Amino acid sequence: MMRIGILASGSGSNLQAILDACAHGSIPAQVAAVMSNVAGARALSRAEEAGVPALLLAHGAYPSRDAYDAEMVSLLRRHQVDLVCLAGFMRLITPVLLSAFQNRILNIHPSLLPAYPGMHAVRQALKAGARVSGCTVHIVDEGTDTGPIVIQAAVPVLDGDTEETLAARILVQEHRCYPRAISLMAQGRVEIDGRRVRIKGSSGDPTRTLSSPELSD
Amino acid sequence: MMRIGILASGSGSNLQAILDACAHGSIPAQVAAVMSNVAGARALSRAEEAGVPALLLAHGAYPSRDAYDAEMVSLLRRHQVDLVCLAGFMRLITPVLLSAFQNRILNIHPSLLPAYPGMHAVRQALKAGARVSGCTVHIVDEGTDTGPIVIQAAVPVLDGDTEETLAARILVQEHRCYPRAISLMAQGRVEIDGRRVRIKGSSGDPTRTLSSPELSD
Repeated sequence: MMRIGILASGSGSNLQAILDACAHGSIPAQVAAVMSNVAGARALSRAEEAGVPALLLAHGAYPSRDAYDAEMVSLLRRHQVDLVCLAGFMRLITPVLLSAFQNRILNIHPSLLPAYPGMHAVRQALKAGARVSGCTVHIVDEGTDTGPIVIQAAVPVLDGDTEETLAARILVQEHRCYPRAISLMAQGRVEIDGRRVRIKGSSGDPTRTLSSPELSD
Repeated sequence: MMRIGILASGSGSNLQAILDACAHGSIPAQVAAVMSNVAGARALSRAEEAGVPALLLAHGAYPSRDAYDAEMVSLLRRHQVDLVCLAGFMRLITPVLLSAFQNRILNIHPSLLPAYPGMHAVRQALKAGARVSGCTVHIVDEGTDTGPIVIQAAVPVLDGDTEETLAARILVQEHRCYPRAISLMAQGRVEIDGRRVRIKGSSGDPTRTLSSPELSD
């Protein structure tokens, strides 16, 4: 059973989706520990409610990002974590953490990367006038939202959408994608080939499509 | 009935999709003229077969891009064209043409813009490791593939995809999207609000999604 460490700074709804999927046995993984840099983060109480170790690692006590990440690596190892999942963790990751878990750190982002990396991805999509957006689970590398893409899901952008309504529509897909991506990693089905990912044993339906709503109305 | 002028340099499969949609009466428009800068382009013979004026406008005879576009505008006006559709037209458009048909020039591009503008969009998507890509019909402005987006459709990227197989999957959606976008323009339903487009009377289903195939297998 693959052991996951989840890093979260905020409310942790993706964390909850992962906790639920593990609890229901729908993915071959278990959450070994949840860590946050924010005291009182909802993510920590979600972990406690699920009976999972909830660790606060406040950054104020560390002289540098490297020192902070070294402590993080130490904690992750103590909990025998195989795979690290970022779920709204609002800190940059240093090479200290990256090299300790090379190709074993996942992140989720509310856009079809490489479109709209960085902050305010949903706002960026609306500003660009996109009619389709979505979310991406990717392997973390040294860049910002640049690592190999494991799974993406697309959703329509509707005329009346605000940042809130579009973000909520995307979030529903995030909660599907993140557990699924973890499951694929746990099954050893994710092969990284340069910037492209190949999923062993995948049997996708090439005929499925999603269009902006005006196409069919 | 809206009158369309189509500019094409190559084989013109999108041209054919538009000719067919007009011939079947499935969109409230008719093709008034097809113009190409390439002698012997398949697009011209497609037009002839459909009984539509097919005009060759070779650029060699014009001293400048502006002079070429001025002649193009003159021809489009002579054929009482309301809407210009670029369908694989491999020349840059100058402000001469843009200003004569402001917000009345459409283009189709094989990506979910603003991702992968310019040449080799399908190759770019594969290189980026995207698991979802698609196509975009947009209003042409002074930039390269930057104008307001009217319609987008998403397709999955599959593990074994080459540039050819992915381009073919996207092309199927292009042939759906382009006639539909023209129909929306002809119905006066496309409202441009800054960079965003709003479609009057749109009733999209916000629950429809498309995921990379690994999500459901």
